Amino acid sequence: MTNKEITIKDVAKRANVSVATVSRVMNGRDRVSDATRKKILKIIDELNFVPNTMAASMVNKKTNMLSVVVPEIQNPFYTAVIGGMVEIAKHAGFVTLVVSTNDDEVEEAAFFESFLGKNVDGIVLVGTHKDAEFYRNIRKPTILVDRYINDCGHDGVIIDNFRGAYDATKHFVECGHERIAIIDGAHDYNDGKDRYWGYHQAMHESRLTPDPKLHKQGKWLEEDGYRFTVELMQSEQPPTAIFAANNVICTGAIKAIRDLNLHIGEDISLIGFDENELAQFVRPRVTVVGRPTREMGIQAAEMLIQKIKEPPKGQAKLKKMILDVELMKFDSVKKLNES
Amino acid sequence: MTNKEITIKDVAKRANVSVATVSRVMNGRDRVSDATRKKILKIIDELNFVPNTMAASMVNKKTNMLSVVVPEIQNPFYTAVIGGMVEIAKHAGFVTLVVSTNDDEVEEAAFFESFLGKNVDGIVLVGTHKDAEFYRNIRKPTILVDRYINDCGHDGVIIDNFRGAYDATKHFVECGHERIAIIDGAHDYNDGKDRYWGYHQAMHESRLTPDPKLHKQGKWLEEDGYRFTVELMQSEQPPTAIFAANNVICTGAIKAIRDLNLHIGEDISLIGFDENELAQFVRPRVTVVGRPTREMGIQAAEMLIQKIKEPPKGQAKLKKMILDVELMKFDSVKKLNES
Repeated sequence: MTNKEITIKDVAKRANVSVATVSRVMNGRDRVSDATRKKILKIIDELNFVPNTMAASMVNKKTNMLSVVVPEIQNPFYTAVIGGMVEIAKHAGFVTLVVSTNDDEVEEAAFFESFLGKNVDGIVLVGTHKDAEFYRNIRKPTILVDRYINDCGHDGVIIDNFRGAYDATKHFVECGHERIAIIDGAHDYNDGKDRYWGYHQAMHESRLTPDPKLHKQGKWLEEDGYRFTVELMQSEQPPTAIFAANNVICTGAIKAIRDLNLHIGEDISLIGFDENELAQFVRPRVTVVGRPTREMGIQAAEMLIQKIKEPPKGQAKLKKMILDVELMKFDSVKKLNES
Repeated sequence: MTNKEITIKDVAKRANVSVATVSRVMNGRDRVSDATRKKILKIIDELNFVPNTMAASMVNKKTNMLSVVVPEIQNPFYTAVIGGMVEIAKHAGFVTLVVSTNDDEVEEAAFFESFLGKNVDGIVLVGTHKDAEFYRNIRKPTILVDRYINDCGHDGVIIDNFRGAYDATKHFVECGHERIAIIDGAHDYNDGKDRYWGYHQAMHESRLTPDPKLHKQGKWLEEDGYRFTVELMQSEQPPTAIFAANNVICTGAIKAIRDLNLHIGEDISLIGFDENELAQFVRPRVTVVGRPTREMGIQAAEMLIQKIKEPPKGQAKLKKMILDVELMKFDSVKKLNES
């Protein structure tokens, strides 16, 4: 009798209990005595029975569950990534669990130590840790999304952050702007770093020196976008243009500009990174660096499932998929060089 | 030797393998032969060893995992509920997994049949099923949030939808409005039904007959809020006031009003249900029925954890916690009865 022919009926017969009782044990339900439970577990073990629940994962190590681990789920960027991932996973027969780490390294580590972290078949991860070592210790098939750290030992799906920021800054310059501010957060990951250096490069190529007073660096939060926009506009030499380096910083900037009774595209030019609801709503609509957020989730899920189904033999070369960005131009940038 | 004194070392000693090997088996990792794996699992069983992972849940049926199951994670209402729940669960030592059902009964049922649905310790559920039977078949500790169906067999945390809609409609009437439209979705759950009847009751008490042409019923989606607002405002006898019965319908209404070049609080009065980013952003800010979204997640998590730690003996009486709502008044309602 090979493993595949064994059914729950064989277990029940051997244990001299009903199929329902075996099922209750398999499903961890109540109303089974400890003695019976132990007996059944033993027989399951002896028969090498592979039921379709927990024991299955102990034996063949497949749970048909994936996890997508993100820093938070309030940011629409992450929910879009999750949406793309869940769709692909569902079609491939996987259940996807969403875990938020609150952008906290301790919580992230706790997840990987948890029951679930150890038992999903694979993980799509927007990581919070800043050290490659942490990622190298993840033994599950894992795809990093958005934030990538070199030598982390996993494939990744990211976007061309450098080019996005470069194109945005170049667009300001082409419209005659010179006092171009940038509001960003910490440079812990590739994304923040690359966006800053994209801005920097575009400034230098245009023979403009980035003014340190026009680089406002806080956290990647709406409140910082708001606070720094107010500071910049109330400074002695305000900028004529602001590059808000992520979606929520841009939301904060839009609200600050409204509260200062200034007009976007008139009193201050603005470009954001990534779509956000307010950028789309206000008139003029705000020019943003568009990125394929949902597509990032789709690509990551496809790479992950491929890896689970056909595990790479030996040391496979790491793949980094870089998706393209596009400057979506509206009228939030004033042309200073037209008469 | 009682159960608690047994450690992974005892298992390793008895199996004559290293602790690392036992650990690899417990964690479902590779690099252990099937024979060794079986031997170790058998010894674990014989010793009645309770390791801190999967086997633990097979023996003591606790995974320290909760799940929050919601129709979708793009709606900020759900992410607020999730946020509150996760916070409480974390403090109590639980990992919370977020599952989106895409508001699809089949997907929801699949979750409860899945590995995870069967093995979390408890569930906070914003249900998609419309029949009480489905909920009665859930054997895990479960708290229903927001949507509640009578005779479902579980405790619930909901809000006073009737009063929210009643207060909103009364506010319109007090400001002199008579042609008051309502845009809502299907009345599958308590919430939609109660909001409609709250509106209805306030109209009748004010000796106003609700005009069927002013009740636009679609899905609970932004696009319906947009479409119906345009239809209403372009009809022969447009309303003077619109009650948008959820947050995304209100977002759609705000966008439609902007695109029709009308002014909120001037050309058309508007009240929404639940906060949303645009309602807060536009000027005048939109009056909404505020509800304690995060608090709903907190209350549900506390009720759930209480239930897990002290399972009710026998047939406990069902509890339904009804949280209060509040009409948050701004200037989106024009006073027609002032000279």
